[in-house]
Amino acid sequence: MIIPEPLQIAIDELSKFPGIGKKTAQRLALHLLKKDMDEVSRLVSAIMGLKEKLRECSICSNITYKEVCDICSSPKREHSIICVVEDASDIFAIERSNEFHGLYHVLGGVLSPLSGVNPENLKVRDLLERVKDNDVHEVILAFNPNTEGETTALYLLKLFKDTGVKITRIARGLPVGGDLEFSDDATIGRAFLSRVEY
Amino acid sequence: MIIPEPLQIAIDELSKFPGIGKKTAQRLALHLLKKDMDEVSRLVSAIMGLKEKLRECSICSNITYKEVCDICSSPKREHSIICVVEDASDIFAIERSNEFHGLYHVLGGVLSPLSGVNPENLKVRDLLERVKDNDVHEVILAFNPNTEGETTALYLLKLFKDTGVKITRIARGLPVGGDLEFSDDATIGRAFLSRVEY
Repeated sequence: MIIPEPLQIAIDELSKFPGIGKKTAQRLALHLLKKDMDEVSRLVSAIMGLKEKLRECSICSNITYKEVCDICSSPKREHSIICVVEDASDIFAIERSNEFHGLYHVLGGVLSPLSGVNPENLKVRDLLERVKDNDVHEVILAFNPNTEGETTALYLLKLFKDTGVKITRIARGLPVGGDLEFSDDATIGRAFLSRVEY
Repeated sequence: MIIPEPLQIAIDELSKFPGIGKKTAQRLALHLLKKDMDEVSRLVSAIMGLKEKLRECSICSNITYKEVCDICSSPKREHSIICVVEDASDIFAIERSNEFHGLYHVLGGVLSPLSGVNPENLKVRDLLERVKDNDVHEVILAFNPNTEGETTALYLLKLFKDTGVKITRIARGLPVGGDLEFSDDATIGRAFLSRVEY
């Protein structure tokens, strides 16, 4: 074995990241090896800081320092609208758009029976209780536009059917700055079906 | 700012890796956040192990545990042939081919005046001394087939001109399993120029 053991261990650990294969992991490990101890320590303490300082908001499961996140505890947000997302990273993306001012609910995934993700693996019951216990009048479903996202949306729609709460989903259509000529058929089809009046 | 500080710090640190942008770094940081403490500790100790346990071989600059690496200290290797490479990762690739049984010399880069890499930034003087002080009769240049690699090879060729040491370089041609039809002109041209007799 030509690769020394500590290097091999680091390569194996780094290749556990999603989307990082053995070759990329080797490149990353060799990069770290070239850096001085200060820089490596900074990376290591940043990684440990993640686990030590951050937790899930007890209401919406957003990533936060505190028991309840800044969004859930803000009096400026509309507490009667909940946007359901797959992951906390979706919250960051939606917040950047500055168009939504309600609360969030992180489901922690989407339904995918083939990968063994069923409703009991997601924060579905929490969402139902949250909507029932609070004066929520709209639930916006903001999943990725794919099969799993669609399946999860349909499941939640059925679940909320008898609650009388308004359920909406974010629009599908041409992305801003997109090009009709180069858009795929499904997107163009959706854009026509969801056309709005001027 | 919607992204909590410890997460932002981790994203900033992870995006210092070569080829890892802000978006990938965010994905990696969120992945770590989902892992349990054991797994994160394993990654962290693997990273620290890299820096604490490994060093450069004092002869060839290969990555090793010891003062002198396994290759340099092996009596089974031909000590009269030195293969010069850009980086220690090139040694791993060459060793996997199992075709070379001499010693190595890691230059620590290739000449690139535009990026400020000059001969004094590389282990050129060490190589010259090593060749002079030992009974070396062949130096094989195994750089990547690009402009910087070629420049470095020509520079070393000139440097060793008066030493009487045989200087060779690894062959250019069609890669094994490659396809003539889909090879680029430069590769086909090189393959013709370097044709060998059966």
